[in-house]
Amino acid sequence: MATRKYEGKKFMGKTGAKVLDPLTIEEALQININDKPFTVSMRTPGEDINLIRGLLHSEDVISNSSFKPEINLEKENEEGIVTIANVSIPDENLGKGYSNSRSLLSVSSCGICGKTELEDLTFNHEKLLVKDQIDVSLLHDYFDKMRTKQHDFEQSGGTHAAAAFTLSGELLCSMEDIGRHNAVDKVMGKLINLKSLNKAKIITVSGRISYEIVIKCFKGGIPFLAAVSAPSSLAVDYAKELGITLFGFSRGERTTCYSNPQRIK
Amino acid sequence: MATRKYEGKKFMGKTGAKVLDPLTIEEALQININDKPFTVSMRTPGEDINLIRGLLHSEDVISNSSFKPEINLEKENEEGIVTIANVSIPDENLGKGYSNSRSLLSVSSCGICGKTELEDLTFNHEKLLVKDQIDVSLLHDYFDKMRTKQHDFEQSGGTHAAAAFTLSGELLCSMEDIGRHNAVDKVMGKLINLKSLNKAKIITVSGRISYEIVIKCFKGGIPFLAAVSAPSSLAVDYAKELGITLFGFSRGERTTCYSNPQRIK
Repeated sequence: MATRKYEGKKFMGKTGAKVLDPLTIEEALQININDKPFTVSMRTPGEDINLIRGLLHSEDVISNSSFKPEINLEKENEEGIVTIANVSIPDENLGKGYSNSRSLLSVSSCGICGKTELEDLTFNHEKLLVKDQIDVSLLHDYFDKMRTKQHDFEQSGGTHAAAAFTLSGELLCSMEDIGRHNAVDKVMGKLINLKSLNKAKIITVSGRISYEIVIKCFKGGIPFLAAVSAPSSLAVDYAKELGITLFGFSRGERTTCYSNPQRIK
Repeated sequence: MATRKYEGKKFMGKTGAKVLDPLTIEEALQININDKPFTVSMRTPGEDINLIRGLLHSEDVISNSSFKPEINLEKENEEGIVTIANVSIPDENLGKGYSNSRSLLSVSSCGICGKTELEDLTFNHEKLLVKDQIDVSLLHDYFDKMRTKQHDFEQSGGTHAAAAFTLSGELLCSMEDIGRHNAVDKVMGKLINLKSLNKAKIITVSGRISYEIVIKCFKGGIPFLAAVSAPSSLAVDYAKELGITLFGFSRGERTTCYSNPQRIK
C-alpha cells in the first residue's frame, strides 16, 4: 500500500476531465527507542522494519549489524496518519549515534534531519580501501534491473528508488520511497536483515545524490554508488574522502565517474 | 557562484574521457538568532539573505512580514564550507515558531527539519478563502518563463527551481537551489524583501511537491501552487485543508488539479 487514489481534474489546454490518479503516500513514522521519542520520519509506508533497521545502522545507533532489535509497529489511531514504532535496544548495543541528541522530525525528502550540532556533520572515519573493480559498461544493466522493480513509480511518478547489487550484477534488493534517503535506508535495512550486507558492492539510485546518501553508502561498507542524475559538490567531496567510487548521470551506456576511478576495470 | 567545476571521467560503454563538469554547490548555512544557534541548513550559496527571510517567515519565527531583521553573514574560515548568519530580532518581533525548539540540521533536500515534536506538524490555521481565478490554459506559459531563469540547472542538472507570478503571468521572482524547499524559501524571502508578497498569486516548482511546500505556500497567502512532477498524498490532503489549489504533472498544455478546482476559470 504505497499509493492511494486521488480524484483530480486533468486539463489539456482549457478542456478538463475527471481522473483518478494513484499518488505516492507520504505519512509520519515516529520511532521511539526504549520508550523515548527518537525521531519522526516522513516516509512511504511499507518496509518500515527495514527502514528503521537501515536508519539505525546509518546513524550509528546500532553499530553491530548482527544485532536484531525488537521492533513493534502500531497505528496511533484508526484514521491516523501516524505509525509508532517502539524499538528495544539493550544499552550494550546502543552506538554513539544514539547520544547525538537526535530528536527531530525528519521529512521525506531529507536524509540527516535531526542532527542538532553542526559537528555531527563531520565524523571520524576510515577511508574504504577495498580493491573491488567494476566493469563500467555493465552499469546500465544494473539500472535496467532496478527499473523493472519501480512499481510505485510506474503508478504514481512520485517515488525514488534504490537498489543493491553484487559486482556480477545480482540484484540483492530494490526499494522505493517518497524520500530518496528512505529508499537507501530500506535497502540497507533489508540487506542487514538478510545478512547480505557484505555481498552488496554497489548501490544504484534513481535520482540525484546529495552528501547524506554517500555517508549511508560508506556506513554500509559499499564502495560503488551510481545515480541517474546529478551529484552535488559535497557528495563528490565526501565520496573522495570516504573512498566511494561515485557515478552520476548514468543513462543508457553513458555515465560519469567523479571519484576514485582507480576501481574501474 | 552556485556551481563548481569538478573533474570527471565520462564513459560511453567502456570508453572514458576526461571532462570538467559544473556541479551544484551544497554547503552549510548556520543560522543564529540573537546569538543562539537556531538551525543549520544545507543549501546552495547565493541569495542567503532571501533564503533566511523566507525561512523565518514560513516557520513563524517572524510573523510580521513588514519587519526587516538585521542579518550579518560571515564565512567561518577561508576554506570552510560553513557560512554563519547572525540574525537580530527584538523580542516583540519573535513569533511562536521561535519557541518551537527548532535546533537542528536541515538538509538540502528537506523542508521542515528541526521540528522536534510531532505536534509541530499540525498547526492552527484558517483556510485561504481568496476568490482569485486562474486561466489554466496559461499555466504552461508560467513554466516556460521559469525555465528561462534556470541558469544553474542548465549547467549542472542538479538544482530545483521555484518562481512566483501574478495571475496575469508577470514573473515576480525565480530562484534555484539544491533543495526544493530552499528554492521556495528564497522566493518567499525575495517577495517579502521586495514588499511584493501580496502581489504573488501562484508559485511554480520544477519538481515534486511534498507537504512542506504546501505549508510554505499557505504561510505566504498564495492560493495557487503548480509543479512539473507528482504531488504526494499528504501534499494534496494539506492543500485541500488549507485552501490551496494544487496542480501536478504540469507539462506543456497538460496539468492535473488535485484540490480546490473552484478557482479554475
